[in-house]
Amino acid sequence: MTHVRQSALHAHWRAANYLAVGQIYLMSNPLLTEPLRPEHIKPRLLGHWGTSPGLNLVHTHLNRVITERGLDALCVWGPGHGGPAVLANSWLEGSYTQTYPDVTRDAEGMAKLFRQFSFPGGVPSHVAPETPGSIHEGGELGYSLAHAYGAAFDHPDLLVTCVVGDGEAETGPLATSWHSTKFLDPVHDGAVLPILHLNGYKIANPTVLARLPQAELDALLKGYGHEPLHVSGDDPRKVHQAMAKAMDQALDRITAIQQAARSGGAAQGRARWPMIVLRTPKGWTGPDAVDGEPVENTWRSHQVPLSGVRENPEHLRQLEAWLRSYRPQELFDADGRPTSQVLDCVPEGARRLGAGPHANGGLRTRPLPLPPLERYAVPVDKPGTALHEPTRILGRLLAQVMADTAERRDFRVVGPDETASNRLDALFEITGKAWQAGTLGTDEHLAKDGRVMEVLSEHLCQGWLEGYNLTGRHGLFSCYEAFVHIVDSMVNQHIKWLKTSRSLPWRAPVPSLNYLLTSHVWRQDHNGFSHQDPGFVDHVLNKSPDVVRVYLPPDANTLLSVAEHVLHSRDYVNVVVAGKQPCFDWLSLDEARVHCARGAGVWEWAGTDDGTRDPDVVLACAGDVPTQEVLAAASLLREHLPELAVRVVNVVDIARLMPREEHPHGMADSAYDALFTRDKPVIFAYHGYPWLIHRLAYRRTGHEHLHVRGYKEAGTTTTPFDMVVRNDLDRYRLVMDVIDRVPGLAVRATAVRQAMTDARTRHHSWIRAHGTDLPEVADWTWTG
Amino acid sequence: MTHVRQSALHAHWRAANYLAVGQIYLMSNPLLTEPLRPEHIKPRLLGHWGTSPGLNLVHTHLNRVITERGLDALCVWGPGHGGPAVLANSWLEGSYTQTYPDVTRDAEGMAKLFRQFSFPGGVPSHVAPETPGSIHEGGELGYSLAHAYGAAFDHPDLLVTCVVGDGEAETGPLATSWHSTKFLDPVHDGAVLPILHLNGYKIANPTVLARLPQAELDALLKGYGHEPLHVSGDDPRKVHQAMAKAMDQALDRITAIQQAARSGGAAQGRARWPMIVLRTPKGWTGPDAVDGEPVENTWRSHQVPLSGVRENPEHLRQLEAWLRSYRPQELFDADGRPTSQVLDCVPEGARRLGAGPHANGGLRTRPLPLPPLERYAVPVDKPGTALHEPTRILGRLLAQVMADTAERRDFRVVGPDETASNRLDALFEITGKAWQAGTLGTDEHLAKDGRVMEVLSEHLCQGWLEGYNLTGRHGLFSCYEAFVHIVDSMVNQHIKWLKTSRSLPWRAPVPSLNYLLTSHVWRQDHNGFSHQDPGFVDHVLNKSPDVVRVYLPPDANTLLSVAEHVLHSRDYVNVVVAGKQPCFDWLSLDEARVHCARGAGVWEWAGTDDGTRDPDVVLACAGDVPTQEVLAAASLLREHLPELAVRVVNVVDIARLMPREEHPHGMADSAYDALFTRDKPVIFAYHGYPWLIHRLAYRRTGHEHLHVRGYKEAGTTTTPFDMVVRNDLDRYRLVMDVIDRVPGLAVRATAVRQAMTDARTRHHSWIRAHGTDLPEVADWTWTG
Repeated sequence: MTHVRQSALHAHWRAANYLAVGQIYLMSNPLLTEPLRPEHIKPRLLGHWGTSPGLNLVHTHLNRVITERGLDALCVWGPGHGGPAVLANSWLEGSYTQTYPDVTRDAEGMAKLFRQFSFPGGVPSHVAPETPGSIHEGGELGYSLAHAYGAAFDHPDLLVTCVVGDGEAETGPLATSWHSTKFLDPVHDGAVLPILHLNGYKIANPTVLARLPQAELDALLKGYGHEPLHVSGDDPRKVHQAMAKAMDQALDRITAIQQAARSGGAAQGRARWPMIVLRTPKGWTGPDAVDGEPVENTWRSHQVPLSGVRENPEHLRQLEAWLRSYRPQELFDADGRPTSQVLDCVPEGARRLGAGPHANGGLRTRPLPLPPLERYAVPVDKPGTALHEPTRILGRLLAQVMADTAERRDFRVVGPDETASNRLDALFEITGKAWQAGTLGTDEHLAKDGRVMEVLSEHLCQGWLEGYNLTGRHGLFSCYEAFVHIVDSMVNQHIKWLKTSRSLPWRAPVPSLNYLLTSHVWRQDHNGFSHQDPGFVDHVLNKSPDVVRVYLPPDANTLLSVAEHVLHSRDYVNVVVAGKQPCFDWLSLDEARVHCARGAGVWEWAGTDDGTRDPDVVLACAGDVPTQEVLAAASLLREHLPELAVRVVNVVDIARLMPREEHPHGMADSAYDALFTRDKPVIFAYHGYPWLIHRLAYRRTGHEHLHVRGYKEAGTTTTPFDMVVRNDLDRYRLVMDVIDRVPGLAVRATAVRQAMTDARTRHHSWIRAHGTDLPEVADWTWTG
Repeated sequence: MTHVRQSALHAHWRAANYLAVGQIYLMSNPLLTEPLRPEHIKPRLLGHWGTSPGLNLVHTHLNRVITERGLDALCVWGPGHGGPAVLANSWLEGSYTQTYPDVTRDAEGMAKLFRQFSFPGGVPSHVAPETPGSIHEGGELGYSLAHAYGAAFDHPDLLVTCVVGDGEAETGPLATSWHSTKFLDPVHDGAVLPILHLNGYKIANPTVLARLPQAELDALLKGYGHEPLHVSGDDPRKVHQAMAKAMDQALDRITAIQQAARSGGAAQGRARWPMIVLRTPKGWTGPDAVDGEPVENTWRSHQVPLSGVRENPEHLRQLEAWLRSYRPQELFDADGRPTSQVLDCVPEGARRLGAGPHANGGLRTRPLPLPPLERYAVPVDKPGTALHEPTRILGRLLAQVMADTAERRDFRVVGPDETASNRLDALFEITGKAWQAGTLGTDEHLAKDGRVMEVLSEHLCQGWLEGYNLTGRHGLFSCYEAFVHIVDSMVNQHIKWLKTSRSLPWRAPVPSLNYLLTSHVWRQDHNGFSHQDPGFVDHVLNKSPDVVRVYLPPDANTLLSVAEHVLHSRDYVNVVVAGKQPCFDWLSLDEARVHCARGAGVWEWAGTDDGTRDPDVVLACAGDVPTQEVLAAASLLREHLPELAVRVVNVVDIARLMPREEHPHGMADSAYDALFTRDKPVIFAYHGYPWLIHRLAYRRTGHEHLHVRGYKEAGTTTTPFDMVVRNDLDRYRLVMDVIDRVPGLAVRATAVRQAMTDARTRHHSWIRAHGTDLPEVADWTWTG
């Protein structure tokens, strides 16, 4: 504590505590200039006091080291329920007023700060997008440490502190996030300083980690790769001293690790990063007991320790005593401005935690350099004759982006051990897989500075990438389609974050969160039923339409076009579903670009209608395997029922099906009718659960003529064609659907229908005998 | 190794390895009675070899200790991709043939075993419901240890071994599952013996844990509460010795812990349970190198080490040498029967891992004793006048069930620290919260033998309960509605498990997995936007209709009736959404029973139609808050537009809306039409995302007249009524919807419509000024 005296730190902490309590309770009389009366109290008492004094302590001490060391820092507040604490600190340092000028740093502003908290039309009770300096919503717990690492990657000069609550520490995602130590490069990445806050209790229970003997806890944290430093106590004077000492030790150690790693020379072992274990009472400095029950240092201080303040004079008296215990008259001048002592530790300008540019990452975002797609596109002279693995083609493009960002280091690809399996291995010609743990001679592509991140945890992949995106950088998450459900709840929260951020003019747009879902439902020859779930699209489409985009490119060139679009975009969650298995090339790059820009369109070359009038039937498709089956069905119809006018429609951008009023990409009804007709049968082969298409299109005029085939949970370990047969998405079934639904056709086409039934029977016999697909299917190509 | 000689163990292991390789490769010639030719090889080579020898080693040594010690044991195979290993062992011990008599334990059966593996129409490549002795699908990784603990709870005489793969160990759910040590009672629960198998590699990468220095790994495992025992090596002889010694040490230690705890006397500290760290090469005993690349002990042995066997004579030669390296002629007699030496270690009867009753838990299920609901029901003389917290009423019923199972110990309630918050605290009058870690004087309701399980990890809650259910016991998972998405992927896998199980006649039905989703979207006054997500229902309804059931009881008595039903049911996933906040009582218990049995019905007393003809409009509702708003709207209509014939329909069982062909609970079209009419406007106030109702009802005749209100992601920290206003689900908006949609009404009812608009405006002004709901809303009661 060289510059800032302890008394100043204590004053800052008291001020922050006072402001936190004020937010929970006070409607007016913010400075207690008059005795507290019931009408000063909010009618609804909401908020979480228990964690706030600990967060305030951390913020106070971060202020000191930022000021003294001139640090660029960001803090992820895991116990984000402690919104009052983080808001209090932002107001104290002036970043709140800078962001929201009407909440001035004086008595009037203080009154607004108090009143707006958890008040309808005001600010949420948690750390949220509205909170200056935040990249982490404190609602659903478990992701703070992964976010912190994501923020630190490729920010070598940044210190990311992360307060981990001991409740949150029980979650799975947090429990594995500690292993991020094996992926952080001390040369190219910044430092993460975790502060495990053991305040001892969750809502109604002690926490597991707080009740471990210290030796066992230390073993755990050392096992995670950390050197823990302990700060414990309930005497503020001693805790200030211990906390200051621990912070200095931790930061000295971080500097030493970084200097050693960055000076190069002899190979370094994996760094043992410091961390702080802060053990202070829950609800510290709050009421010791209420109505005869102990409150401070128990779970009873989790939310609002005094709940009956308006009605109960004793509660009111206790609240006033509590507030006055911070001696506000020493902390704020008569106009409500924080005194110079309170502000002594507070950093200036962009160094303030509420004003740092990393936490408003869009300010720092540079457009991603994308090479011309022409270099990677596959030639298509004739549709449906050559085969490519779409993700392999995409991999080459991504490799070039990786190469072109080698210096900037603002692009990463994350995935659970599947980059090569997903055919993106061209990336490894350019960069390695981040890895700080031990290596062996037989390892391939591991590199301390690698920008592909593989770990068998979708949670970590998602959390890292969210942190990376929110601090302004670009990325892609490549994932097995079925297992992306593991992060359903995380993407919920991220979409909510983006939705709110978009409404805040001061938040600059950040790069979109991009998913590449591959190894999809239709191709799980190795894995079977457990690996078959196309429902992430349904999940995402329940969320704010301003944020969510879903693309199902049917071949390599459309995948390139979609990838270009999503990698350039901002503030979206883009879900791209594409296969990794060989897939027919349908469109040239130019055609792909036009088709993707429209999002849905007629493939004239595939149909038999002349375009001058409505066809007899529309065969629609979305997704690579359904597209192939629809094209094969169109081919069968052309052969067997040449007089039938068939239109083939492919949908890339699934939200095009929605009404315009419900999604920005929604088609006008006139456009929908022109594409799908108002009254002709539409047989729609969809990649996922068939009812999704109905849910999107139910308002369309022609909806009653829409018949959708898709995945209906009929799966096992089997061949590609058997999968589509089991789910009635196969070419033969689609032809039967056409025959059954085009008025009058059933009578004319009984022989054709029988031929289709026979083909399905042939399939069943063949596969039982040979274990492979019918040669006529395996060898099929489009003949037009 | 007192009884079984090492040579016998080695023979068993070799036999299991031989059978695993055979499953991956061979169509015929199972005993290699003739030289291997390409036509003996499967056309599609699928399966995962890498993990199989390690699993075989564990199974072999488990056989020994089960035999020697007379154990009742179950094993959870985390690396379930090693299906060939577990199937091989089941066949060897005869449990496979017992379960599937056509796969005999001879050459003919061996040929079937080989051929069916990963073959269309055969068995999946993973450990799956089809696998005798399994309660754990080895597809999505991360849940093995939680399943193991769930199986061990309340099975004091059971040993549950759990092989944890080092890939899986990187997942979040697994990382926190280790902390289950703080929840396992050595007196009333069985033992869990984790075997962390460090085979070193995932699909294409080393694993984090395998690359930690041993001291760091030991620190981690001790930090999790275990005493690790190490078994390492690649010399089978030495590994057999070390493994046998470690197993004996571990089991002796478990016995000592249990005896000490069960003998009572002095208070015991928390047990430090043993575990085994098994470090053997990936693909051990497989090809050392293929095509010049190292394979054994690298990630290249993950799946099929020799991939070109049919085409490449060198691969074929290597495969034959590999198979013959196990000396099959010593392991199987001329008829293909395992020799007595191979079977020396194999236990008898129900002690065999593939034949234990715990893994077919429905065999052991006893009906849950449910007390008469009359004891807990709230009296309802007149609907909509008294208020109760539905979950508090349910809590009393659950407490009685807890009391009535005190001896049997076959009922548990799990939840992430929310049992009391969710108003189920009557449970704590009967039992405590399971807790083995340290306690303090201020703690409440913690108990070593508690049968309420609280941990801040939805993953653990779900995993434990799945394990508990699958081994035949009953339970309930009470969860915040928004955060149940955390287990979306887990419930996917459980539904898939149940769907497949139901098709296997030998699997006895198990108790359903029951969710109580509360603290729901409409009441997040404290928490706001991040806590608002009603989409779990959508997620679940994408899955197999044979398995999923969703209920939205609108009041206390309907919740009781639904609870009774789901707690008695088998093989379902039941989702019950119910509020914990005070809610009007609408139905008496008798009425509730009738209503819940129908699943959806007219509330005659609430409407103004006479029932003899179609009403002018149907007001439908599902969920407690929508029901209240619909009733309030009905009341307004009765007051302002008394001539309008309004029918009020409440839906409890949401699948009733689906067509009969799509869900077993689906209503016949005639019933639907009778309820909702074929052509009258239906204003449907739904608890969740409104388009779900369209997705369920799109095929109904009256669908074009269906107008749904629900949650549309418009939320923040605010009052209950402001939430419904923001989402256009409020009573005033519903009345406006009626006016807008009943033909001809708009003209007649302009004044009423204006009054509704005015009320909404009044709401907006009031809430900004007071932060509370309008008195006319807050004080509203049904007046009929």
